[in-house]
Amino acid sequence: MGNPDYGKIFENIKEHSPLIHCITNYVTINDVANIILAAGGFPIMAEEKEEVEEITRMCDGLVLNIGTLQKKKTEAMLLAGKTANETGRPVIFDPVGAGSSGLRTETAHRIMKEIKLSVIRGNVSEIKALCQDKAMTKGVDADGKDALTKDSMEDMISMGRRLSEETGAVILMTGAVDLAVFGRQTAVIYNGDPDMARITGSGCMLDGVLGVFAGASPESLFDSVVTAAGTMGICGEKAAAASRGTGSFRMCFIDEMSKITAKQVERGIRIEYKSK
Amino acid sequence: MGNPDYGKIFENIKEHSPLIHCITNYVTINDVANIILAAGGFPIMAEEKEEVEEITRMCDGLVLNIGTLQKKKTEAMLLAGKTANETGRPVIFDPVGAGSSGLRTETAHRIMKEIKLSVIRGNVSEIKALCQDKAMTKGVDADGKDALTKDSMEDMISMGRRLSEETGAVILMTGAVDLAVFGRQTAVIYNGDPDMARITGSGCMLDGVLGVFAGASPESLFDSVVTAAGTMGICGEKAAAASRGTGSFRMCFIDEMSKITAKQVERGIRIEYKSK
Amino acid sequence: MGNPDYGKIFENIKEHSPLIHCITNYVTINDVANIILAAGGFPIMAEEKEEVEEITRMCDGLVLNIGTLQKKKTEAMLLAGKTANETGRPVIFDPVGAGSSGLRTETAHRIMKEIKLSVIRGNVSEIKALCQDKAMTKGVDADGKDALTKDSMEDMISMGRRLSEETGAVILMTGAVDLAVFGRQTAVIYNGDPDMARITGSGCMLDGVLGVFAGASPESLFDSVVTAAGTMGICGEKAAAASRGTGSFRMCFIDEMSKITAKQVERGIRIEYKSK
Repeated sequence: MGNPDYGKIFENIKEHSPLIHCITNYVTINDVANIILAAGGFPIMAEEKEEVEEITRMCDGLVLNIGTLQKKKTEAMLLAGKTANETGRPVIFDPVGAGSSGLRTETAHRIMKEIKLSVIRGNVSEIKALCQDKAMTKGVDADGKDALTKDSMEDMISMGRRLSEETGAVILMTGAVDLAVFGRQTAVIYNGDPDMARITGSGCMLDGVLGVFAGASPESLFDSVVTAAGTMGICGEKAAAASRGTGSFRMCFIDEMSKITAKQVERGIRIEYKSK
Repeated sequence: MGNPDYGKIFENIKEHSPLIHCITNYVTINDVANIILAAGGFPIMAEEKEEVEEITRMCDGLVLNIGTLQKKKTEAMLLAGKTANETGRPVIFDPVGAGSSGLRTETAHRIMKEIKLSVIRGNVSEIKALCQDKAMTKGVDADGKDALTKDSMEDMISMGRRLSEETGAVILMTGAVDLAVFGRQTAVIYNGDPDMARITGSGCMLDGVLGVFAGASPESLFDSVVTAAGTMGICGEKAAAASRGTGSFRMCFIDEMSKITAKQVERGIRIEYKSK
Repeated sequence: MGNPDYGKIFENIKEHSPLIHCITNYVTINDVANIILAAGGFPIMAEEKEEVEEITRMCDGLVLNIGTLQKKKTEAMLLAGKTANETGRPVIFDPVGAGSSGLRTETAHRIMKEIKLSVIRGNVSEIKALCQDKAMTKGVDADGKDALTKDSMEDMISMGRRLSEETGAVILMTGAVDLAVFGRQTAVIYNGDPDMARITGSGCMLDGVLGVFAGASPESLFDSVVTAAGTMGICGEKAAAASRGTGSFRMCFIDEMSKITAKQVERGIRIEYKSK
């Protein structure tokens, strides 16, 4: 298992300028649109039931994010997701807050059940909440904060692997380090900066970037996810060096995404493959 | 037909600090509010059916933008629009995504039919989608991207003129260059920067600025529109020079709007009047 | 009555990292989330009726803001508010636009009646609109702009005191200067910068910061409110010095909040206690 072909992944984005349909929360919807543009894609936000199928049908990827969950929006997500499944386009799912309320957990399970997902991205608590079978989460601390440590890594990988096998999706658990699992493939990405947790939307923006990368290279799903996570982390590192507080960190972060090249990712990414 | 009296237009804004009621999308609603403030107006966002008439009645202008369209919001738009027609205040309409979904196209047509619009702003595809009669769009390529070229200009002007005559509104088509048509009056505005297309909200922010300029000088509608478009373009040029990526471009853009003067517009605007 | 123990108030935030549930408007929801993070808290935005009680129950404070009012959201606010009353957590209420439409005024009164509020923050017009008894607002000009002047101060204090007694809440009237009234306790805070009125969201962000400060030190409600208002004002002063327009002012403002210390507040706050 070699490293992703970063050059090819970036070229695909440049060539296709993927159009990404997002049904997402109102807190970070602007950041998601701007980061998709910065990453080389085009965002389209539409959530009225009557039009989502038509919109998804013209897009290269779909992002579903259940922050500021509304029941009406859930219906639109299901329609859009089924359409993306029909057209064979990747679906990125972010179960924001799964585990925090019954409604979120149920909604996340319903989406997982009715839609074939390509990528599921969440923190450890959220990913854990997606696992119905207790045996799947053995050894995983529900408190996601420090959960991705050396000690817990093996249990995390097991959980991710099972969820990946159950759903057929790449599982991307994010935190101080990021862990990507796709069947037997496993990678830990060490890039990033603590300031990413001091702004809202780092996770939601990653969802959008995953849409762009996977939408442009759907045939290389795992590599796209690993590259997207690494690219985000490197942009976080660069933004931390350039900023003077969390307000400018957010701005610098988008600046960096609008400028980063495949070469810089190749040089900056810190990735470790795990085999078992 | 002379140039607009930029000094007078800016003075009117300063004197009246126009209050602009916006019913707009959730992606760029914050940018729209901030650019209205930067341009010297005051924004008020209200979209609950029960209160929109009361809100519109106290305002100097109304901006309707159908991004993230919701059927409930459409009803509020119609009520607000009719109220603005009653009080004689300018209504700016942005048919975001008209042509991309049946719902958007129908909604745009309904708004055009039920409300007397003062300004319609969109890219070439959106404006084309508003023209029901095929003869109106002769020679106009539906792909808006490069549509405003020397070769296509004559056809664009014809389309704009017909739509302007049908609606009584100033038609503002924006892209690499901007084209304003109001009956027999036609102006091409050459200001702007490609980075404006790399952030979300350039178009929506222009809607808000059009509200401020037209709201302060409703008696000089065409001149207000041309000046607003030129001012936006000049701010884009200045922001491009001051920024280091798309994140800072957006911030610098608002900075420039908050500082620009009539004198700077007079010096920087590149405008060509077309007669036919 | 001495000055607040700024050190203790900041320590409490650091120690508890209060989780603040916000039901707020879509214009500034991103700014509110980011300023809560910058101030040392964690934001959670949830407004679907079915989940708000569950969410509020795990939080340290609740912020209710009726900008972009929607009737559905009002129901969620009432449920969340009652839950916070049950768990004994502070509720911050911002009656945005009360007085501007019947719906807003009625909604504000309903919230005031059904929920025990800890802090009510608004400009003079909004606070006035909350006072049902005309005698309460004697001498108070409805136009909030210049209302907090030397001449009007006594009438403002009277109005605030009566509303505070009626509701049991700290009343925080903001404008060129800020006035905090809690029963017989009264403080005027002189910090701030005029640029705060040239961006959208200064008030909404203060709501979020009040949530963080009061959520971490609920036992010192008045001191928390005064400190939050002073901290905001000092950040505004620092941001004005660092910015080059209203776009960068907003960014610098969040930067400053993410860096400010208790020592800086102690040094920079300009506060005057009124006794009567």
